Amino acid sequence: MKKGGKNKNNKLNNKGQQNQVSNSQSSLNPAASQFFSQAKTEEEKLALLELLQKKLQEKAQQKKMEQENQDKHQHGAQCSHGSLPSPQISHEQLHMPQQNNSMNFPEFQEPTDAYRPEHNQFLQDEEEFKHFRQVVCSYFNYRTDSLKEVARMERGYHNIGANKSYLKYDFNQRLEKLKQAIELNAQFLDRIVESYHDVAFVKDPVTKVEYIPQEYVQFRDISKLRSTLKQMIRDWSEEGKIERDLCYKPVLEEFKKHYPNHIGADGKRVRALFPGCGLGRVVFDFACLGYGAQGNEFSYHMLFASNFILNMMNHAKEYTISPFIHSFCNTFQENDPFREYKIPDVNPSDCLNPEMNDDFSMAAGEFVEIYKKQPEEWHGVCTIFFIDTANDIVEYIKTIHKCLKPGGVWINLGPLLYHYAESFTEPSIELSWDEVQHVIKEVGFELTIHPQIKTHYATDPNETMMKIEYNCVFFTAVKK
Amino acid sequence: MKKGGKNKNNKLNNKGQQNQVSNSQSSLNPAASQFFSQAKTEEEKLALLELLQKKLQEKAQQKKMEQENQDKHQHGAQCSHGSLPSPQISHEQLHMPQQNNSMNFPEFQEPTDAYRPEHNQFLQDEEEFKHFRQVVCSYFNYRTDSLKEVARMERGYHNIGANKSYLKYDFNQRLEKLKQAIELNAQFLDRIVESYHDVAFVKDPVTKVEYIPQEYVQFRDISKLRSTLKQMIRDWSEEGKIERDLCYKPVLEEFKKHYPNHIGADGKRVRALFPGCGLGRVVFDFACLGYGAQGNEFSYHMLFASNFILNMMNHAKEYTISPFIHSFCNTFQENDPFREYKIPDVNPSDCLNPEMNDDFSMAAGEFVEIYKKQPEEWHGVCTIFFIDTANDIVEYIKTIHKCLKPGGVWINLGPLLYHYAESFTEPSIELSWDEVQHVIKEVGFELTIHPQIKTHYATDPNETMMKIEYNCVFFTAVKK
Repeated sequence: MKKGGKNKNNKLNNKGQQNQVSNSQSSLNPAASQFFSQAKTEEEKLALLELLQKKLQEKAQQKKMEQENQDKHQHGAQCSHGSLPSPQISHEQLHMPQQNNSMNFPEFQEPTDAYRPEHNQFLQDEEEFKHFRQVVCSYFNYRTDSLKEVARMERGYHNIGANKSYLKYDFNQRLEKLKQAIELNAQFLDRIVESYHDVAFVKDPVTKVEYIPQEYVQFRDISKLRSTLKQMIRDWSEEGKIERDLCYKPVLEEFKKHYPNHIGADGKRVRALFPGCGLGRVVFDFACLGYGAQGNEFSYHMLFASNFILNMMNHAKEYTISPFIHSFCNTFQENDPFREYKIPDVNPSDCLNPEMNDDFSMAAGEFVEIYKKQPEEWHGVCTIFFIDTANDIVEYIKTIHKCLKPGGVWINLGPLLYHYAESFTEPSIELSWDEVQHVIKEVGFELTIHPQIKTHYATDPNETMMKIEYNCVFFTAVKK
Repeated sequence: MKKGGKNKNNKLNNKGQQNQVSNSQSSLNPAASQFFSQAKTEEEKLALLELLQKKLQEKAQQKKMEQENQDKHQHGAQCSHGSLPSPQISHEQLHMPQQNNSMNFPEFQEPTDAYRPEHNQFLQDEEEFKHFRQVVCSYFNYRTDSLKEVARMERGYHNIGANKSYLKYDFNQRLEKLKQAIELNAQFLDRIVESYHDVAFVKDPVTKVEYIPQEYVQFRDISKLRSTLKQMIRDWSEEGKIERDLCYKPVLEEFKKHYPNHIGADGKRVRALFPGCGLGRVVFDFACLGYGAQGNEFSYHMLFASNFILNMMNHAKEYTISPFIHSFCNTFQENDPFREYKIPDVNPSDCLNPEMNDDFSMAAGEFVEIYKKQPEEWHGVCTIFFIDTANDIVEYIKTIHKCLKPGGVWINLGPLLYHYAESFTEPSIELSWDEVQHVIKEVGFELTIHPQIKTHYATDPNETMMKIEYNCVFFTAVKK
């Protein structure tokens, strides 16, 4: 399944220079040319024009419905838990270059560029590269996208006219603070992708001004990028500890019960896999316990950011971000959305045993494709907010079973918010927990169900008037 | 502000018969004709075609982004609390015909048709009528829309291939049960709008088959209709009592503290207004206490349904519906989504004092437009999940102040999930609770803040793995 390939449909509709009118048939895009080659008389051409217009409307409507359905589902979760439902990399395992943890980091060293096309054979594929570029561009576009919102808020303020006199706070000050916070976030995001600058920007041959061409940008990537920022709080801030203690700690505690020693009877490290590991904190915490740890992730948004945090930090609390500035709804105090967070709470390279280097890795790609080829390889698989990212959850469960050693342990914590449930292009089957339990046993596990865990996901640490609460199933399944 | 007018933009793009190709310029739609009248040579025409295509794409993209933003916001709430952010009726106050509560209802009498164009001068307006018709059509389209989902689930099941053998439940049985539940809901919804049948359906002159023309339907209305079904559980089922006790009861208790007697010193009934009253239950509960009660609502989806429940029931528990069949995510038990609910838990006409008839009414329209013209008219205004539906919350607060008698009481319970917060066409200003408190005092109220109330909104009464929790502000403001 080559997910990047789905982008192919957009190829004909994208034009670099938006407002330039072409003046000959040869410059018509192929779809229009094809329409016209069928028409003999001018009347037929006119009729075809109308047909074309209708088709375009229908297609736009269809795409809109599709996008709405997808978005609806994602926004229901207000987060991008696990891998995101979108065309993503599906290539084979790719180890990210790890820096030597014992080296002294110079200030502002160049970030690693693990995903540059020249380092990554999978990005030789045109569609895969396009998707990769879209994600890079979404990072560089953050400032521009966010400033559109400032303009919207400015119009909203202007609209209330004389009612301004009833307000306590200077709204223009709010807008100024908002711009500053956007700049703060943008600088952080720019750093994450700075070594891909040439992938995103094109230089105008006349003015020499650099710009990101319109067709490099996907609207839906804005919300994914904002989710990435919020997930930074969950995974790499002190304030995120509450969520981590609810979601990661019980899983690691449970693992320790099954493998109290991180070195096995054969003298080798006990190794576990963390599919859909997002920004990688749980993998890192696990590696700090001395176990062998591999994260697996599917989303470039997550991969860029986790690579940055795991490999590029000079010291703890090096960056400051404000991820919750994108909504002023449901806030109690005027300044709540502007709260700043220090990232990361710990510098990964300070904590890891240098000997761990070879046994702490990230694998980029689609879970089933990678791990179906690793039978009986792993002592454990830990899935947190992951199993509902499947097109076919049965296939996920079978793959987990296959890649575990006999007696190996699968620990899961999360809801069943199936990511493709409202997609009309991606297949999805939404099984109840009742049914999932049955499948787990049928596939060949001994299942132990723990008490459910109520938690949030990448939620604003401030008190707000609306929170999504997950009532997570939590279980351990031992491979028979 | 004539909100219905926004639909005008769609006029040119809608065509009744989708697949028929017109063969002469005269039958081209005006937009296309205009484009072509500017072109002299065939080459120019071709260039214009491309321009037209681009413009259409841009427009579609713009509309898509707008729709996504709106939807994102609504779905965040998973409900349509209060009035919905959409082009809606904004006409003046319109009292719905009330049946005599003491009469015996015959079985299956014709529903009232309060909103028929011939009874309602505001529906003489073309754009208003179009919007009205779209809502009617969304009711009649429920069956068709929902069956598309059954087909999607069928494809998802087919996709898992041999993995079917791991399942415990017969998936085809789930699909059969789903179809039955859709039919159950559809029959209920058909009844609500049955007297508007001729507004929605067109008869094919040749085949005599009735159909709803494509341009009568708006995609976004599907989710609003589904919210209406869920809101039926909140307002008119036994299972909804938990939410009603959390949201309506504290407001009514608070009102009683201020006006212990429903008859005032002048011998007249004490009267309160309930803006954004949805399906009207809280207005009904209030009227049952003997007070004069008026609901105000903006959404045709809500108005049709509340009219049906308040005026057309023969007995309690007359209908059975299953509103939670539209998602199989986050369910514990296989049959949870199929749970059936009896509607209504009480027959309104059994409970109301016949003398109340003139003092229990619904006013359809936009809150500010109606009530800014009723100075010092009301003893109380009760707003539950309403104040965040404003384009300008200050204007709402001023209007509430204006329409209250001196010493009159405003009681509010709800979050600040501003409905237009992500709209790029509708103005919005998102004030924090901190700021809203200040405005309330500035406008001329004495404010008393009660402890916050945690509640859900029209949520599935079954245990599920995901719920949106609102942490509502609750206060009383007395007009100075």
